[in-house]
Amino acid sequence: MLKIALIGVGTVGAAVADILEKNKEIITARAGKELRIVKGVVKNPSRKRPEFNFPLVADYREVAEDPQIDIVVELMGGVDQAFEAVKAALKNKKAVVTANKALLAYRRYELEELARGVPFAYEASVAGGIPIVRALRDGLGANHIESIRGVINGTCNYMLTRMFEKRVSFDQALKEAQALGYAEADPSFDVGGFDAAHKLLILASLAYGIDAKPEDILIEGIGHLTDEDIAFAEEFGYTIKSLAIAKKQGDKVSLRVHPAFISRKDIIAKVDGVMNGVSLIGDMTGETFYYGAGAGGAATASSVIADLIAIARGEKSPMLGFGRPNEGKLSVAKKDEIESKYYIRVLVEDVAGVLAQIAAILARNDISIETVLQRKKRVKKEWANLLLSTHKARETDLIEALRDINALGFVKSPPVMLRIES
Amino acid sequence: MLKIALIGVGTVGAAVADILEKNKEIITARAGKELRIVKGVVKNPSRKRPEFNFPLVADYREVAEDPQIDIVVELMGGVDQAFEAVKAALKNKKAVVTANKALLAYRRYELEELARGVPFAYEASVAGGIPIVRALRDGLGANHIESIRGVINGTCNYMLTRMFEKRVSFDQALKEAQALGYAEADPSFDVGGFDAAHKLLILASLAYGIDAKPEDILIEGIGHLTDEDIAFAEEFGYTIKSLAIAKKQGDKVSLRVHPAFISRKDIIAKVDGVMNGVSLIGDMTGETFYYGAGAGGAATASSVIADLIAIARGEKSPMLGFGRPNEGKLSVAKKDEIESKYYIRVLVEDVAGVLAQIAAILARNDISIETVLQRKKRVKKEWANLLLSTHKARETDLIEALRDINALGFVKSPPVMLRIES
Repeated sequence: MLKIALIGVGTVGAAVADILEKNKEIITARAGKELRIVKGVVKNPSRKRPEFNFPLVADYREVAEDPQIDIVVELMGGVDQAFEAVKAALKNKKAVVTANKALLAYRRYELEELARGVPFAYEASVAGGIPIVRALRDGLGANHIESIRGVINGTCNYMLTRMFEKRVSFDQALKEAQALGYAEADPSFDVGGFDAAHKLLILASLAYGIDAKPEDILIEGIGHLTDEDIAFAEEFGYTIKSLAIAKKQGDKVSLRVHPAFISRKDIIAKVDGVMNGVSLIGDMTGETFYYGAGAGGAATASSVIADLIAIARGEKSPMLGFGRPNEGKLSVAKKDEIESKYYIRVLVEDVAGVLAQIAAILARNDISIETVLQRKKRVKKEWANLLLSTHKARETDLIEALRDINALGFVKSPPVMLRIES
Repeated sequence: MLKIALIGVGTVGAAVADILEKNKEIITARAGKELRIVKGVVKNPSRKRPEFNFPLVADYREVAEDPQIDIVVELMGGVDQAFEAVKAALKNKKAVVTANKALLAYRRYELEELARGVPFAYEASVAGGIPIVRALRDGLGANHIESIRGVINGTCNYMLTRMFEKRVSFDQALKEAQALGYAEADPSFDVGGFDAAHKLLILASLAYGIDAKPEDILIEGIGHLTDEDIAFAEEFGYTIKSLAIAKKQGDKVSLRVHPAFISRKDIIAKVDGVMNGVSLIGDMTGETFYYGAGAGGAATASSVIADLIAIARGEKSPMLGFGRPNEGKLSVAKKDEIESKYYIRVLVEDVAGVLAQIAAILARNDISIETVLQRKKRVKKEWANLLLSTHKARETDLIEALRDINALGFVKSPPVMLRIES
């Protein structure tokens, strides 16, 4: 039998306890031994809450230092306190399982050091019930990963799906997501792309052994998308998803989270609503794709328990996928080193020569146009939105071009740019 | 360093050798040690072939009994000889990796016995480069698996994709598949559903711990599909895929391979061409879905090497996913215990009262009709194809009804039935 302590007994913790009870027989058969929760840590043990068949205490040291406990499951969230709790457990040679993406986004390499010789697992930290950590760390180990593209924030994806399918506005989609419990009262962590960035950094370490923090990478939210962008996407066979992207470019890795146009034929375009999906391109496998529920108590707890089973079996995969340092050192690409195809939206006064002048600026910056669409504004008849897509270009060139376009007299608001990733 | 022997050095074996060389640095970093092939076994070592940097021998005993060898990779194919070779390796305490689905379909429980205490891995045996064995064995360990639905035969899927997209006939699609090397000269193993059945049995053992052989399960090929079936599918929002299905029904598991109608909204409907895809529904995760290349030297070798890396790391997952027998014993459902929605095609003389009589027979057998479509035959104007879909019904009732329908005077050929699985 393995004795487990939960630090944090909220939605996920309660689901872990519930599933270990409900599916006890099959979990024991798979793990080869019984997994039993013997203690929980909560801020206020005397608060009224559902009853558990294990005692609750207030101090994480009571589990980190308890000699009967084999595995500590950290579900408290946050970075610094969680780090202290996990560190205490590891110092006492207890295996650790966590679902805490922020902890890993900021301190995974410190944790890797601390966890030498002690199992440390975190399948639940990315994409809920999808075993994506295993896929990258174990399944595709023979490959150089050429790219990762993930729809890994259910809130953004639910909102974008509604904006596409029902043509509701961003504000309306957010209201709906909040009413359904898919978005927080303060939605900025999800909608701003930060949640996805945390998860991306975990995947990027597994693929590339690369150390970066959320501050080091490009993160753009979905707040600036409008009905015109969606109309353009529909017209030209695209959908818009908030993508977390890691892409190898020579000896650099481009890491970014931003909304992007993708072809509707792309399998990742099929990830709708609150679902998650991750596409991995390996140099040997080509594209593989993984899809499922990215959040929710039961799906997340399923991944926590998968880690418990692996520890019970004596699994020994290195925490971040590399048993030795990856010698071909990769570094994080600078934000302005991105190359992509682009979509541009420019609000203009509808006068003669507008397109010619804009096209000239793009040409001057080595950017060639693929398609153009013009949409009259309904409220101001003499204004129009000019919607363009380009062939592959350098982002530095594009930013330069947009600056020049913005300076044109007939341009009515700063041009908006989105990347095309298909 | 781990020393490896390959038994069988064809397409996959050569790809394993090639990737271990080409991606040596990252594979060594992930495995924590070097993986080196030191010997190969082929039928005729003196035959002219590409050069390898390891010697070739003719007898598998020369690797099974060679004390310097740590891991034997079996890529010879077939059942009985491969079993003898693997058994010899296991007896000498060598770890085994295989891509041989037929060997596992017939003898996996014997192999599990022989492999106690010795690593035995077979990621490459199902769905090529997709890490689906890991997903089921490790990733979803907390779940009761409610169903598995797999598009796991690339030949069938390529042909069906062509039949849908270009409306080519079965014979034409087969010719194309053969010309492209996707189908064998004798295509019956793929087209008849047997290849998929082998893979299904492996997945079913991981999900349910269930022992069955190909002969025990329902297997139907795609040879009887016609243009009418495809027209009906298009009309009502379906596509047709050859599916390998394992479905829990109480304490039984229904195991079958057959073409089926599935909703075009179903994520598995997006698996086109030679690609593979597997949908797994767990009681805790809900649906998760896995997609990628199901065949090809490099993709298959990628999975072989993933197993080698896992063995180098000291991984200890039980071969078939269960460290102890699963106590809630499940048995294989009988073929006539299937319940499904159905599609029926009946060729009739186009006279008054035809539909009424057929509908009466279905009603008498507790089968209710969902939709009806009638298509005139182009060649024989007075004949028509009646295409029906039903609500959920018992297969025994349906077979009974089809027998009665076949006996009607105006029915011109035995009615054809397909299951609807969405």
